[in-house]
Amino acid sequence: MSLAHELADPLQVRLLRLLRDEGPLSRAELGDRLETPRTRLSAELDRLVAADIIAEAGPAESRGGRRSTLVELNPRLRFAGVDLGATSIDVEVVDARMETVAAYSEPSDIRIGPKAILHRVNELLGKAKVEGAYDRLDAVGIGVPGPVSFRDGVPVSPPIMPGWDRFPVREFLSREHGCPAVVDNDVNIMAIGERHGGVAHSVDDFLFVKIGTGVGCGIHLAGEVYRGSDGCAGDIGHIQVDSQGPVCSCGNIGCLEALFSGAVLGTQALEAAKSGRSSSLEERLAANGTVTARDVALGAMEGDVVCIQMIREGGRRVGGVLAGLVSFVNPSMIVIGGGLAQLGHILLAEIRSVVYRRSLPLATGNLPVVLSELGPRAGVAGAAVLASEIAFEQAL
Amino acid sequence: MSLAHELADPLQVRLLRLLRDEGPLSRAELGDRLETPRTRLSAELDRLVAADIIAEAGPAESRGGRRSTLVELNPRLRFAGVDLGATSIDVEVVDARMETVAAYSEPSDIRIGPKAILHRVNELLGKAKVEGAYDRLDAVGIGVPGPVSFRDGVPVSPPIMPGWDRFPVREFLSREHGCPAVVDNDVNIMAIGERHGGVAHSVDDFLFVKIGTGVGCGIHLAGEVYRGSDGCAGDIGHIQVDSQGPVCSCGNIGCLEALFSGAVLGTQALEAAKSGRSSSLEERLAANGTVTARDVALGAMEGDVVCIQMIREGGRRVGGVLAGLVSFVNPSMIVIGGGLAQLGHILLAEIRSVVYRRSLPLATGNLPVVLSELGPRAGVAGAAVLASEIAFEQAL
Repeated sequence: MSLAHELADPLQVRLLRLLRDEGPLSRAELGDRLETPRTRLSAELDRLVAADIIAEAGPAESRGGRRSTLVELNPRLRFAGVDLGATSIDVEVVDARMETVAAYSEPSDIRIGPKAILHRVNELLGKAKVEGAYDRLDAVGIGVPGPVSFRDGVPVSPPIMPGWDRFPVREFLSREHGCPAVVDNDVNIMAIGERHGGVAHSVDDFLFVKIGTGVGCGIHLAGEVYRGSDGCAGDIGHIQVDSQGPVCSCGNIGCLEALFSGAVLGTQALEAAKSGRSSSLEERLAANGTVTARDVALGAMEGDVVCIQMIREGGRRVGGVLAGLVSFVNPSMIVIGGGLAQLGHILLAEIRSVVYRRSLPLATGNLPVVLSELGPRAGVAGAAVLASEIAFEQAL
Repeated sequence: MSLAHELADPLQVRLLRLLRDEGPLSRAELGDRLETPRTRLSAELDRLVAADIIAEAGPAESRGGRRSTLVELNPRLRFAGVDLGATSIDVEVVDARMETVAAYSEPSDIRIGPKAILHRVNELLGKAKVEGAYDRLDAVGIGVPGPVSFRDGVPVSPPIMPGWDRFPVREFLSREHGCPAVVDNDVNIMAIGERHGGVAHSVDDFLFVKIGTGVGCGIHLAGEVYRGSDGCAGDIGHIQVDSQGPVCSCGNIGCLEALFSGAVLGTQALEAAKSGRSSSLEERLAANGTVTARDVALGAMEGDVVCIQMIREGGRRVGGVLAGLVSFVNPSMIVIGGGLAQLGHILLAEIRSVVYRRSLPLATGNLPVVLSELGPRAGVAGAAVLASEIAFEQAL
């Protein structure tokens, strides 16, 4: 895949990943798992110990014969994950084992521009430092809600992020924190999060479909994020699903995102509440002064037929697009995440029904379509994992 | 990517590929190009010379200092490529440099079953042997018009190939010719052919769209064929393009293939000829007793409006599907091949127009949509390249 990793020492990265994901391991066990001769591995370990990236952690349990020594990642390693949404900032600091040591989440508005947003990110990270979450960061990973040049570490013509076009996000964070930084699209980091610690654990070929304010898709092939030749692969929100449909914000007609997304569902919900078509939404509007996609989910749980129909109709649209992609890419799992995943099983059932009906039997014979396990944490968790990968590649 | 290659020695394969594609190289040049230390490379070369896979080819031109020796692939190496179509058999034998030394092409009918078809393939290969094209084959590659389990070397539930389901094609050919064999989908081998010796030369991420009796897509990512988790990736013929469209042979409604393919165009042409709507097709029907997709192409070249419209309508359908795939996979090139590529520039112009209009600017800013360069030879050339790859992996 077109990865940034290509030039890194594979042994170093593989070794550090293994310690991150499995914890302390004996030298003997590492040799077995990495299929590396003893002398080569010893040299590598000595190098990483000298650089303070890994540490000895006492004797391992005996396997017979000479005792082996346990090694682990330096417990002081810290990675920051940042997930910028259209209307939110999520920040986490994690340790060497990807355990959360500090987490902040707050509403925001991506449109206030890169300087104000990234300043706030730095404030939150500063707060974590003051509170003792870290002495220094080893890498920062950040996801943004728009297309990114992964190679250059900048957003590229992001439609909902005025002022961010080609802003040097990676350089800005790297300089501030004196460590490597990495910038990716929000859907890609969610897919990475879900593969590391969620429902797609150890699945090599899967699609992560985010249905939130907009709709996008993270593509994981052969265990790696696939970003496409310009870094904008996965932009499924603008696939046409109805040639007679409404005009989309992108200027085309009948895009998926113009027919089903958080924004569209909110508008539909308001209309159904005002017209009185849905008594459940009408009541919520009266009580709260507004209704959103969340109210549609709650209405559906109470059995409101109009709410259920709105979700089914959306699921049918998403399912139609996914059916085509399943025939095209033949993945082994589809994960549904993002804010609208809260619509839950009604949405999932409709998506499944269309995908299973419309794709080739060979491609769907064994194709789970499941909800994200990490939910709102998928992005920030994935950003931290991506940060660790960059740190592992650039160590030494 | 999910490749069969994973376990092979990368150095061996990289070295043999380089000699295949560039011809004789000096030991010094090989060391530079493969970025391999001299002692490691020498050991590898000695091993391959001893096994008669490569040969010394005299002294290289001096680069100053000690003269280096040229090495080349053993000129006696021979690979066979076989491309089975729904109604044709193409066979080629190529040498170590992928130059054709024998080629046969004849009409056939895939429905007569694997034994009869493969028997005929063996007869054609036998004929090549008698005519002096080879003493023994080093590998055979074959493409079939249906889904294939690449790992198992067998067709899997191929819709238009009765009797072929799970027939051990690889084993059959391997036993007959006493060499490794490899089986793939016909579209994948066309993509491989086009990347090795055609318009997609050195392009890492591209889609090869075959429009023939059916419609399919070969997916090349990061320089390798992407086959998906069950080996059926690229089956775009059954993506729905019109929910009110005709019933497809697969049982679903409005599949791309049910609206535009060689078969559909033939039916449409016959209807337009009989009804007299197209005078060009009417004349051809009278003259030849039948009309096919080829007559539509000829009619369009003469300016027949009905023929032009039929091609444009088809291009619009294909373009609509490709626009979605471009947003999804962000390739750096699209190649149009297969029998209907003979519809030429009218088809291409319509596909381009829809793709450029409907995909994201970032993804299409630099996206050539071009016709196959190898034409009918793409499949058989790719099968021979695939054969060489298998031979390179399994050598020693």
